Amino acid sequence: MKGALLFIGDELIAGKILNTNAEFAGKIFSALTLKIQEILTIPDDEEVIIETLRRLIEKYDFIITSGGLGPTEDDLTIKAVAKALSLPLEEDKTLLSAILSSKEYQGKEEMAKKMSLLPTGAHILDDEYRMLGFYIPLKKKKLFFLPGVPEQFEYLLEKKVVPLLCEAIDEKKVCKEDKIFKNFIFFDLNETDLNLFIAELSEKEDVKIGYYPIFPEVKLVLFGEKNKVENLSQRIIDTFRINLVSEGEESLKVTIGKLLLKGGFTLSTAESCTGGLLASLITSVSGSSAYFERGFVTYSPESKREILGVSSKTLETKGIYSHETAQEMALGAKKCSQTDFSLSTTGIAGPTGETSNLPVGTVFIGLATPKEVLSFHFQFFGDRNTIQKLASYTALDILRRYILYGKSFFSYRFAKGFKERTL
Amino acid sequence: MKGALLFIGDELIAGKILNTNAEFAGKIFSALTLKIQEILTIPDDEEVIIETLRRLIEKYDFIITSGGLGPTEDDLTIKAVAKALSLPLEEDKTLLSAILSSKEYQGKEEMAKKMSLLPTGAHILDDEYRMLGFYIPLKKKKLFFLPGVPEQFEYLLEKKVVPLLCEAIDEKKVCKEDKIFKNFIFFDLNETDLNLFIAELSEKEDVKIGYYPIFPEVKLVLFGEKNKVENLSQRIIDTFRINLVSEGEESLKVTIGKLLLKGGFTLSTAESCTGGLLASLITSVSGSSAYFERGFVTYSPESKREILGVSSKTLETKGIYSHETAQEMALGAKKCSQTDFSLSTTGIAGPTGETSNLPVGTVFIGLATPKEVLSFHFQFFGDRNTIQKLASYTALDILRRYILYGKSFFSYRFAKGFKERTL
Repeated sequence: MKGALLFIGDELIAGKILNTNAEFAGKIFSALTLKIQEILTIPDDEEVIIETLRRLIEKYDFIITSGGLGPTEDDLTIKAVAKALSLPLEEDKTLLSAILSSKEYQGKEEMAKKMSLLPTGAHILDDEYRMLGFYIPLKKKKLFFLPGVPEQFEYLLEKKVVPLLCEAIDEKKVCKEDKIFKNFIFFDLNETDLNLFIAELSEKEDVKIGYYPIFPEVKLVLFGEKNKVENLSQRIIDTFRINLVSEGEESLKVTIGKLLLKGGFTLSTAESCTGGLLASLITSVSGSSAYFERGFVTYSPESKREILGVSSKTLETKGIYSHETAQEMALGAKKCSQTDFSLSTTGIAGPTGETSNLPVGTVFIGLATPKEVLSFHFQFFGDRNTIQKLASYTALDILRRYILYGKSFFSYRFAKGFKERTL
Repeated sequence: MKGALLFIGDELIAGKILNTNAEFAGKIFSALTLKIQEILTIPDDEEVIIETLRRLIEKYDFIITSGGLGPTEDDLTIKAVAKALSLPLEEDKTLLSAILSSKEYQGKEEMAKKMSLLPTGAHILDDEYRMLGFYIPLKKKKLFFLPGVPEQFEYLLEKKVVPLLCEAIDEKKVCKEDKIFKNFIFFDLNETDLNLFIAELSEKEDVKIGYYPIFPEVKLVLFGEKNKVENLSQRIIDTFRINLVSEGEESLKVTIGKLLLKGGFTLSTAESCTGGLLASLITSVSGSSAYFERGFVTYSPESKREILGVSSKTLETKGIYSHETAQEMALGAKKCSQTDFSLSTTGIAGPTGETSNLPVGTVFIGLATPKEVLSFHFQFFGDRNTIQKLASYTALDILRRYILYGKSFFSYRFAKGFKERTL
């Protein structure tokens, strides 16, 4: 079964917005080994839409479009679909009343009417009529028309389109309600291990497995019958527990917030090479003020001494980039802010600044806990932004592992050394 | 003249990378009013490439492809082009020796040979042979084949493809060397004013003008004959001087670094609602340690008091979100870090946290200078991330305007009030 994705919108053609829907759909389909042969973007132009639809319908088994379902003049998809398929438009009364009862379209009868005109034979995808988007089965072909709004596109694709497609290709018809998606987010995962694991499993199990990077994390997607997905999930959790950030969509910055809240812990930061990015990740989560007390960006050596109390002797004999400086930074931040934990970073984000002993990408990360202070020596690779990101996420992950497992699982792919000191 | 963009690559189909080339090309072409009718992405599959190329060549006046020119097995574009156009492949000896003399391909004869086979009649786009990418004129049609690497794609598109296309559509043939691009970055620009200005100009002048958002900044692009572009540039600079961040591609975070370096000034930050993002923007620029001394993320009220010396009275009577707190934060950071300038932010990034008097999006930004302390009250709109970004960029821009113009130009679109106090 081969398919095409068709994105409709002048704003996409003009590069005014990045087509994240295409990326999302690409990931979903490649994870599921459903073959997408063509991804197309065309302008809001009725003739072009009609002509393109006709060509795609002739060529592919399924087509998924995005955009042009709204009430404004440049939303031409529905009219074009009706013309391309020679189907009359009919008012869907349930849809009309659902639209009119929403806040956004209260009293906007004309707009609502336009949106509730659907080609004959179309089925609304969202059973609860909260969003536009419909499905037309055309002989053996499946046509899906989704809204361009990313949240709605993503929801309908995962929850409605993929189950309908999988139902269509399965020999024994499995009720779509039995099939589920399950996501995992991992950090610092060895992709070779993951590949071997997946290769071994996909032969045995009747579950579709895929993964893709959301740098610097990795997302794993399972899809299949509920009980099979659940069994496999347990095996995945057992195998990759240490690297598991969340069962779902939550990134490290959210997971770390939940862990801190759950334990009643507070956190502070002392950053050098990450320059505020670590604090910024933590505070990008709403409600972070409940556990994040304060942060320091001690960029100059003086600021490390004055604010964090890093000793001049340490800076001179051990150097700014050292276990000792990272540890003293973390301890200083913890003391001054009286938090349970404190994370520190010091290193060379590049592209300039390498020393005779230490290359660009060298980063020391410190973690002060109520009982001890730990530090890690890393060698990261990439440009300035990549190194700052890797260092910030790794700092969060060190704290995650410490809260969950103590010091039992501290091996990291890019780690070069570890030091600890009991307080 | 109508054209299509064709992106070739499994990694794009699978959503493993975001198609930023499509966005870039879309912006360039919409800015130039060259019409793109279709943007296509297809897998690395020879049959599909051949079939797609043939269809596009039949339909459009120009076609630009991206990807598949490299030396690996899945790079199939060149072979497919030769087959689609029934052109034999010939070794380009200049290209071969250029590839072999590069570091990357030294001694890799076989790979280099594969890459230097071009369809008969193809012209290498880069005169200096530093990158792949070629051009085939086919009767009245123009076919361009670019590498997928974003830097190379963007360079060749701007410097080679667009001039060749413009040359083709101009009635009087203007030598391509006479035509230039000119970019501007603006901040806090009223887009209605800009639209009116552009609409008025594009009628009179023989220069193509376009603009697009790189949130929260706006990029303006001019293209045309050198002297006309230069004349128009001067008018644009005169009209929008206050909002001009850079003549070129430089963002505020780079511009602010240059201004500080030039004046020999140093900077510190004291952030609440931006949570480290402001420091992170500043330190994302290589070399920022020359002017950025330190930063504080004073998330809790205690940290504002303890570290920055904001008085309890101010916090209680004026509130955390106030001109007075923003001013005391900036003064505290400046005093403690002994910098020339200090920027502070305090406000409600949302989505929770609104007070009885102040809605989400309320942000006070403080600037301490050697002579005075200033504060601005803003009302921003959007989600948490948008508000944090707007507040951080606005803080940088306030400092930019202060260094360039003193207090003469302090009107901002989202500003609700201003206070100052001489030291």
